[in-house]
Amino acid sequence: MPTNKVSPISPIKASSVNHWDYETDVAVIGCGGAGACAAISAHDVGARVMIFELASGIGGSTALSSAEIYLGGGTRVQRATGHQDTKRAMADFLTAAAGPQADMAKITAYVEGSTDHFNWLVEQGVVFKDSEYPHRAIMALTDDCLLYTGGENAYPYNTQAVPAPRGHNLKVVGDNGGPLLMKILGAKIQEKSIPIEFNSRALTLIIDDSDVQQPVIGVKVRIDMQERYIKACSGVILASGGFVMNDKMVKQYAPELTKCTERIGNPGDTGSGILMGMGVGGAAINMHEGFVSLPFYPPASLTYGVFINSQGQRFVNEDSYHGRIGAFILRQTGGSVYLVLAVEDYGNYETESYLNADVVATADSIAELESDLNLPEGQLQVTVSDYNKYAEVGKDEQFHKDPAWLKPMQPPFVALDVTPGHGAFFPYFTLGGLDTLPTGEVLKASGDVIKGLYAVGRTACGIPRRGEGYASGMSVGDATFTGRQAGISAGTRRTEQGNTNG
Amino acid sequence: MPTNKVSPISPIKASSVNHWDYETDVAVIGCGGAGACAAISAHDVGARVMIFELASGIGGSTALSSAEIYLGGGTRVQRATGHQDTKRAMADFLTAAAGPQADMAKITAYVEGSTDHFNWLVEQGVVFKDSEYPHRAIMALTDDCLLYTGGENAYPYNTQAVPAPRGHNLKVVGDNGGPLLMKILGAKIQEKSIPIEFNSRALTLIIDDSDVQQPVIGVKVRIDMQERYIKACSGVILASGGFVMNDKMVKQYAPELTKCTERIGNPGDTGSGILMGMGVGGAAINMHEGFVSLPFYPPASLTYGVFINSQGQRFVNEDSYHGRIGAFILRQTGGSVYLVLAVEDYGNYETESYLNADVVATADSIAELESDLNLPEGQLQVTVSDYNKYAEVGKDEQFHKDPAWLKPMQPPFVALDVTPGHGAFFPYFTLGGLDTLPTGEVLKASGDVIKGLYAVGRTACGIPRRGEGYASGMSVGDATFTGRQAGISAGTRRTEQGNTNG
Repeated sequence: MPTNKVSPISPIKASSVNHWDYETDVAVIGCGGAGACAAISAHDVGARVMIFELASGIGGSTALSSAEIYLGGGTRVQRATGHQDTKRAMADFLTAAAGPQADMAKITAYVEGSTDHFNWLVEQGVVFKDSEYPHRAIMALTDDCLLYTGGENAYPYNTQAVPAPRGHNLKVVGDNGGPLLMKILGAKIQEKSIPIEFNSRALTLIIDDSDVQQPVIGVKVRIDMQERYIKACSGVILASGGFVMNDKMVKQYAPELTKCTERIGNPGDTGSGILMGMGVGGAAINMHEGFVSLPFYPPASLTYGVFINSQGQRFVNEDSYHGRIGAFILRQTGGSVYLVLAVEDYGNYETESYLNADVVATADSIAELESDLNLPEGQLQVTVSDYNKYAEVGKDEQFHKDPAWLKPMQPPFVALDVTPGHGAFFPYFTLGGLDTLPTGEVLKASGDVIKGLYAVGRTACGIPRRGEGYASGMSVGDATFTGRQAGISAGTRRTEQGNTNG
Repeated sequence: MPTNKVSPISPIKASSVNHWDYETDVAVIGCGGAGACAAISAHDVGARVMIFELASGIGGSTALSSAEIYLGGGTRVQRATGHQDTKRAMADFLTAAAGPQADMAKITAYVEGSTDHFNWLVEQGVVFKDSEYPHRAIMALTDDCLLYTGGENAYPYNTQAVPAPRGHNLKVVGDNGGPLLMKILGAKIQEKSIPIEFNSRALTLIIDDSDVQQPVIGVKVRIDMQERYIKACSGVILASGGFVMNDKMVKQYAPELTKCTERIGNPGDTGSGILMGMGVGGAAINMHEGFVSLPFYPPASLTYGVFINSQGQRFVNEDSYHGRIGAFILRQTGGSVYLVLAVEDYGNYETESYLNADVVATADSIAELESDLNLPEGQLQVTVSDYNKYAEVGKDEQFHKDPAWLKPMQPPFVALDVTPGHGAFFPYFTLGGLDTLPTGEVLKASGDVIKGLYAVGRTACGIPRRGEGYASGMSVGDATFTGRQAGISAGTRRTEQGNTNG
């Protein structure tokens, strides 16, 4: 029947495969941060590994990212820069950030393995400078390492967990952490002679129909227009990204995200890994959630402004992480949302443009601005007047913005329209994916493991679970970490279980 | 492996069934509103029908409800009471209420079939009085029929759809619509001699493993401690309610709902129908959503108050439907939520208690109340002062509360603590379920139909899709309507398709 829905991708049976074109222990689908770490780790425990990458080079969405890897609990850089981070503090933050959707087993594994993961990255050749980038920024623009990337030092998280910066930027000037990370991991893959097939599209998983539990034992891949059958004796690791590039799938599973504008990811983020996992019974969970951002800083001075809804009210502490701001903007009900600030904190509004957001009003008084914005009479005046009072005494009684970002707003004023759909830049990506164990093993809805199948990075539902609780570096941190765990688990599986699929 | 997850219920194969204890055309699982209508409708198109009900009597959650059936587009009662409702207006409202989660095929079918459904209910013996209950109430306490049950006449819906009351209360005094509706439907079932097995628990679906598409052809049921195999030649209709009574399943799929307090439903709402459907590949969708209410009226006079968050702000027009109010309270971030009102609108706070909510402060001035509630200094004073200004001119510039509910608040004042988790009554039920066509046929994630399987009422994901857009009567309306559609579809299936499973 005709349907506008996106289908899970059904597996084929091994008994229908006439011959295997390749045999390996671990087949890794996708070579972004997650896939690369999976391949290296599986290789390092002695497994034969093959990588299949859709693009003509490695990188995936990790190479497009800043790669501020979210790590803590006392990494070398944290200690060197005087931050006393603890596992407890990191777990408290991740738990608060994930809210009711938290997966405690994953948080525990991630926190316990965090400093080890830092060390492993260093072993691969990643260089982190023992320094801090002490600015309010989305990414470090120098080669400094450590920065706050999740609002750990802002309300409410600063009341729920001892704050520490945990974004670890690679030692490289500018927003180039992602490409550098992938270059380093790519060099390791080459050094270890792990074969990669580029321009190869994974089509379907292959299940062993002679086994009652039908474990995954291979994958059918299209390489150079030819369909190839890959036997993966120990397992298949799906590391093929999320589904933000699949409009139908976003509409079907995460309809709220259709309010956003710019998809963050690479063209391969079509959800194919998730759909292959679903096709063998994997549970796709948390599929309605996404990261949504209004990346309004730098310049950090915009943080001195106030976000205003159509009732003329503030609704969030403006020193929050930009993802939290984005999530809160998205949940304002109807009407417009504005960023109102003093021109002195904006700069030249005739030449400077931020976020592709329209400057919809400028005025010499808040009363005039309020009128120009058609806000309810008096509301913005009260909001700004109260805000200025809080700023004067250095205490935001209402939203607990840190005193460092409180400064009375002086005329003239400017208002940016940051309403979703009005043109301002709202990047987003998906946070739902296959349910997995901390080992990366894919779970059915029952919690039972699908033998031989792993999902990592954004093909899985990992550490980042909510738009309002996202921190930069969570996704690359989770991807590289879960890639490693899955590589180790799949790589050692053959030995442990005997040659059950051979 | 040990797991704390709730498993989909796997089917068994027909080839493993030694003998069939019963053979019927349509097996209906559950006899609430949805199941009863399904059974009657399947019978009326000539099918043999059997009903299996877990409890010792019919009724399900419908019998526990008010059964204000949500119907419109020009029903007899709407016309008699002078309401010019149209299909267009009803579709506009349902679309706005469902937001990005709307299923347009279902909305169209429901709207197009709405007056016919009214007439069908009347044919079954349901009596609707040609009168209106013109009060702000959660249910009619007289035997009058028509009332607003979804805030159609309140902002924002009154700007998105031409308002009309669509809650149809049965002609019975008090909150007795549900029991009466089920009594009438039960009498019809008896009159038509449709067999019901009570105290029977559906255990698993049975699939035809000789057919490549493995259609559902029966169900295994435990009756009187005996396992019985029921052959359902035309189909199985799952009408076994939602999953609000299954704590593990709520935690797994709808974790936000764990903030609420009182589960609405009958003990059979354990999600078993959804889990059986998932076990044969049915897609469970929208599983994170639920209806959440703070049923704070009557007395309607409480609507003269204002809901306040921990920033001292209003956040919703207080004349909204109680479910919308509940959804908005749930999304306030941290801190407490209060209902603040004049004592004259409350009554005697020493003897009257509402919602099990604590009276946490009384005061002769808002300044005093604000201080007692530890709200940010000045905020509640500004909020109430502005509110009173709006009330004086009869126009709520901020939240668009209808002038009828605007009245300047005069001292003394009282504040109720309505924070979720602080004791106030927050009833809830689940809105996620199996994805279906308007016929009730269960869909896989791909949109393909699972032959022979139907889901109706809250076992399916139907017309009501969001807590913030719920209207009373949507669930019973949807349950009885989809029950009928599934009964007709399954009942005629055997004839149309030939004896394919016989």
